[in-house]
Amino acid sequence: MELKTVEITKPTPDLNVIVGQAHFIKTVEDLYEAIVQTVPGVKFGLAFCEASGPCLIRHTGTDHELVQAAIEAAAAIAAGHVFVVILDNAFPVNVLNEIKAVREVCSIFCASANPIAVIVAEHSGGRGVIGVIDGSSPKGVEGEKEQAERHALLRRIGYKQ
Amino acid sequence: MELKTVEITKPTPDLNVIVGQAHFIKTVEDLYEAIVQTVPGVKFGLAFCEASGPCLIRHTGTDHELVQAAIEAAAAIAAGHVFVVILDNAFPVNVLNEIKAVREVCSIFCASANPIAVIVAEHSGGRGVIGVIDGSSPKGVEGEKEQAERHALLRRIGYKQ
Amino acid sequence: MELKTVEITKPTPDLNVIVGQAHFIKTVEDLYEAIVQTVPGVKFGLAFCEASGPCLIRHTGTDHELVQAAIEAAAAIAAGHVFVVILDNAFPVNVLNEIKAVREVCSIFCASANPIAVIVAEHSGGRGVIGVIDGSSPKGVEGEKEQAERHALLRRIGYKQ
Amino acid sequence: MELKTVEITKPTPDLNVIVGQAHFIKTVEDLYEAIVQTVPGVKFGLAFCEASGPCLIRHTGTDHELVQAAIEAAAAIAAGHVFVVILDNAFPVNVLNEIKAVREVCSIFCASANPIAVIVAEHSGGRGVIGVIDGSSPKGVEGEKEQAERHALLRRIGYKQ
Amino acid sequence: MELKTVEITKPTPDLNVIVGQAHFIKTVEDLYEAIVQTVPGVKFGLAFCEASGPCLIRHTGTDHELVQAAIEAAAAIAAGHVFVVILDNAFPVNVLNEIKAVREVCSIFCASANPIAVIVAEHSGGRGVIGVIDGSSPKGVEGEKEQAERHALLRRIGYKQ
Amino acid sequence: MELKTVEITKPTPDLNVIVGQAHFIKTVEDLYEAIVQTVPGVKFGLAFCEASGPCLIRHTGTDHELVQAAIEAAAAIAAGHVFVVILDNAFPVNVLNEIKAVREVCSIFCASANPIAVIVAEHSGGRGVIGVIDGSSPKGVEGEKEQAERHALLRRIGYKQ
Repeated sequence: MELKTVEITKPTPDLNVIVGQAHFIKTVEDLYEAIVQTVPGVKFGLAFCEASGPCLIRHTGTDHELVQAAIEAAAAIAAGHVFVVILDNAFPVNVLNEIKAVREVCSIFCASANPIAVIVAEHSGGRGVIGVIDGSSPKGVEGEKEQAERHALLRRIGYKQ
Repeated sequence: MELKTVEITKPTPDLNVIVGQAHFIKTVEDLYEAIVQTVPGVKFGLAFCEASGPCLIRHTGTDHELVQAAIEAAAAIAAGHVFVVILDNAFPVNVLNEIKAVREVCSIFCASANPIAVIVAEHSGGRGVIGVIDGSSPKGVEGEKEQAERHALLRRIGYKQ
Repeated sequence: MELKTVEITKPTPDLNVIVGQAHFIKTVEDLYEAIVQTVPGVKFGLAFCEASGPCLIRHTGTDHELVQAAIEAAAAIAAGHVFVVILDNAFPVNVLNEIKAVREVCSIFCASANPIAVIVAEHSGGRGVIGVIDGSSPKGVEGEKEQAERHALLRRIGYKQ
Repeated sequence: MELKTVEITKPTPDLNVIVGQAHFIKTVEDLYEAIVQTVPGVKFGLAFCEASGPCLIRHTGTDHELVQAAIEAAAAIAAGHVFVVILDNAFPVNVLNEIKAVREVCSIFCASANPIAVIVAEHSGGRGVIGVIDGSSPKGVEGEKEQAERHALLRRIGYKQ
Repeated sequence: MELKTVEITKPTPDLNVIVGQAHFIKTVEDLYEAIVQTVPGVKFGLAFCEASGPCLIRHTGTDHELVQAAIEAAAAIAAGHVFVVILDNAFPVNVLNEIKAVREVCSIFCASANPIAVIVAEHSGGRGVIGVIDGSSPKGVEGEKEQAERHALLRRIGYKQ
Repeated sequence: MELKTVEITKPTPDLNVIVGQAHFIKTVEDLYEAIVQTVPGVKFGLAFCEASGPCLIRHTGTDHELVQAAIEAAAAIAAGHVFVVILDNAFPVNVLNEIKAVREVCSIFCASANPIAVIVAEHSGGRGVIGVIDGSSPKGVEGEKEQAERHALLRRIGYKQ
């Protein structure tokens, strides 16, 4: 067995990416419905690695460029039953609960706008995601001042009151 | 630390397997209830690796052969707090949401009828699942024709209208 | 890429630890709310590895010593968007469903009072959790006697009727 | 405003009926998917009272007779955005959580195999469900003997261990 | 059909009461598990109106006086498949999500420490809850000062940060 | 006891309204968070009838006119612990699941852009919602042609594939 890291490439660096493990090709329609029905007018691309039979990368979305980016990310990961969602005008907090509630979804590896390195294990022709390096490691511990700034930031962007 | 791959053996190759991480031995009764109360007459086996005290493989189910298969899979994985469900006359889509909602369940590594290789890390007497190779890697990208076939398939089996 | 194991140190060995992957710093307030609103008078500490910008370990809780322990565990793991919760007078079954339902939470790696070794991958300055060794590997399979004892235990502690 | 009671007629008296309030015509497809994807081979009928535009009773299902019965029940209730599900080889415990999780579902008035009288308010051309009389009123309080019988019954039918 | 109001009597006026509609007698064990597994050491009483067969008020809990109070409330409401929970050292926010997630639960009529009048419809031997008068009607609209006080109160009691 | 109907007045007739029953004043902040974190840039108003102490209509939102409309609707209903949400650039399908998952929310009476008449019971100074007349009663049953149109409509607006 060999371990590799796969970097996710995005059309613009600030886009959010969700990578998860699911069950079968119905995942594609169900994730599509979960996302479009949560955020009106959402722009996103979605790709899913079918893991038996024709073993095609299945895909959908509302924006051609994002769909292409999701297909490329899924092709680079190349692990059975893994899906990739790339979001443009929406954030993981908007859609993550509805994605977790999709009947085929097993788990979510990451949801992030950071640079992402997906760690993949390869073994006799198959591949599986074993983890994700999501952004940078911590450089320190917040003090009272940074705590107050974090608190204020969430109110300034309107997420908390 | 050493990494190993464990193949899941099933009584017949087309059965579905769910592998997940949970919290303590109450998981066994709670998963049993979640599964039997979702699919009437379901046939399944379930095994869970107790991770402290007597460290026994705890098990239940509605079919002796499937329970044995689940115990063997759990024994092969041999990782603390991991559970294995093998389903016969039901599918992961039927039960996965109720399993995810069980109070002790942390996450689901995979839900699949494909050949499964569980990747296990071993270290000073303990083991942990770090990922799953679920079926085969993708061989291409679906085109419009395959998209239409996927769409039609889900309607033919009655999952979508 | 290098793999390492990180042992979680707890103020007392029997405390429960939950380790998970989330999305951004709002996780801290949302996890705090989920925990305090589920268990009245709960004592806990929480730390989260911010993965961009200042990259600080963000923290909160209701007990100073547990917050410090959570910060130390997060600092030892040092993986982007990972959080650690250490619970004193509560159990994972009390809070795990509400934690899984938090909008930023991707998945839970473990929930356990066992000795925990977190397996971390390190690669060009970032780190990611790839799995957890939770307690000990199984030493046998339960028989009818141990099954009856398990059944009785859950009734004795009042979790089942 | 006038209050009326509407009795639900079922093909056979022991079938289970679920009556609820939802949001718009997508409810029909979403409830269909929730039900067929939870119980393999389920027989059911479903009807929904569209409340604007053509104001038609929308319907689907997997069994013609049950669909007709659901349409008749919906026509008798005749209240905007109300739906009726009649189940044959499945029980409300199998599907109720997935029905509650459907994006358009507001609430469930009842889930029962008892004789059902739906209480409807009528006012200037519109109607609304205000409650349901579900079976009979209590005739006494269980003692220790009946408690033991209840406990044993749930184990005998396999719902509890 | 006749409408009546039923006042809920509680051992002490500040206790919280949850009234809901459910499906069958398994509700009793499932609600018990949901409540004890969410709040460690919780004191509560629970009663449920069986609506067919022996039509007994089924009951459980962790405190004799609260169980008696729940039985009396259920007997006063006397409506098929209705349940009453009376909580002592816990609050509805602690347990309401887990109660809503119980497989048999249809809906919750109220969750309140206020004086409660349950509105019941009676018709040919059966009764159904049609609504609840929960405390008092509003006397005004909050201004900026009261908004600030509300905001501060939730931080003072530790529910928000 | 007296029954009354209350019509909900909206700034423009096509806006969607959600009316529900909740638990205490924290509902206001929690519903705010659920809505703004699901739909980016959402315009809405929210009002909640506090049912004890000062008994004020508590309110929040992202659009002054919609907040005023929600306050007026709540004042017209005037029932303890009832809340009203009026949505502009979003739909109930976007937010209903997150609203149902709020810890204080008991149930949803309706979610609709139709003319709404809320049925209120009044009794010794308190009021309670007992039901909602949501739009018009059905005028017929859909045939195959209307079924095909419904199916096509949901694909045309992009909610289904």
